[in-house]
Amino acid sequence: MADDAPQTDPPAETTIRSRVGFGGRMLTVRVDDVRLPSGRESGREVVEHPGAVAIVAVTDDARVLLVRQHRHAVGRALLEIPAGTREPGEDPAATARRELIEETGYAAAQLTVLTEFFASPGYTTERLWLFMATGCRPVAGQRDAEEPAALEPVPLADLATVLPGIEDAKTLVGLLWLMRGESP
Amino acid sequence: MADDAPQTDPPAETTIRSRVGFGGRMLTVRVDDVRLPSGRESGREVVEHPGAVAIVAVTDDARVLLVRQHRHAVGRALLEIPAGTREPGEDPAATARRELIEETGYAAAQLTVLTEFFASPGYTTERLWLFMATGCRPVAGQRDAEEPAALEPVPLADLATVLPGIEDAKTLVGLLWLMRGESP
Repeated sequence: MADDAPQTDPPAETTIRSRVGFGGRMLTVRVDDVRLPSGRESGREVVEHPGAVAIVAVTDDARVLLVRQHRHAVGRALLEIPAGTREPGEDPAATARRELIEETGYAAAQLTVLTEFFASPGYTTERLWLFMATGCRPVAGQRDAEEPAALEPVPLADLATVLPGIEDAKTLVGLLWLMRGESP
Repeated sequence: MADDAPQTDPPAETTIRSRVGFGGRMLTVRVDDVRLPSGRESGREVVEHPGAVAIVAVTDDARVLLVRQHRHAVGRALLEIPAGTREPGEDPAATARRELIEETGYAAAQLTVLTEFFASPGYTTERLWLFMATGCRPVAGQRDAEEPAALEPVPLADLATVLPGIEDAKTLVGLLWLMRGESP
């Protein structure tokens, strides 16, 4: 690591009490009282999330599969890489294969993990597994009929043009990661 | 755009009812009943967030300012670019200048917006303004004494080595964006 500096983690917080502040159908908010390293008490509100997958999916004819869908939380439609929430206990690779077919109607020949990261570690436990899917081909009749996302394949060569219009964190990570690998 | 395909947004959802499901000190969860394009009713749970800034800060001696801090929500310390939540109504550039000094003790000569994006648009309104700060220099005595983050400057040339250990979405976007600009 940089300058061979010692990698000492900052002191952690100790949880004193924990309760469920909100238990909804999709979201749970945990309210924790913590003791800070200074000895002072403070509160933490945490969104509990089962985790999600996102897939950089490239077709046999060198196009990246993007989907446009309405996002109620932000009040408009966004162009994103295919993604979905894990079922409890589900293997992330299984979630990725399922979501790719449901959202795009394509199946991957190869599926590998590019990286894993947290969506917004200040307040949500959401962890994302970012997959690279290659050799993607349409699978007849497999796209989810209830799927509200519109498929928009983008040629690899056009990614730099599309990038400024991307407003979704996981999609930016996925496309920038892909473009880094594609660059000379 | 790709293939000159028509850019028709998918149909939106209409909010029928809205209530506060959780009102905490930091987080608010809104519970909405919506009508889907199909006519069916469904529920949406949305975390209301005031928005945040994140800063890719490069020093005069070509180092990127990263901070390592304990993140209670994910139970460990993460290496991240400096960031912080907006005060209500605050100009994002003002938030960026304030957070950069508080977290690193450095001030920027130039500050520009690289891009804006949503952290996890499936369930949170959190929007991030990603800034590029150049010409960063230490400002004596300005670092927040209560700041729990440990400063770890990383030479630009070492970013590719550090990247696989980054587990935070906004930091991945920021560093990948920077590396793209830095590459030949």
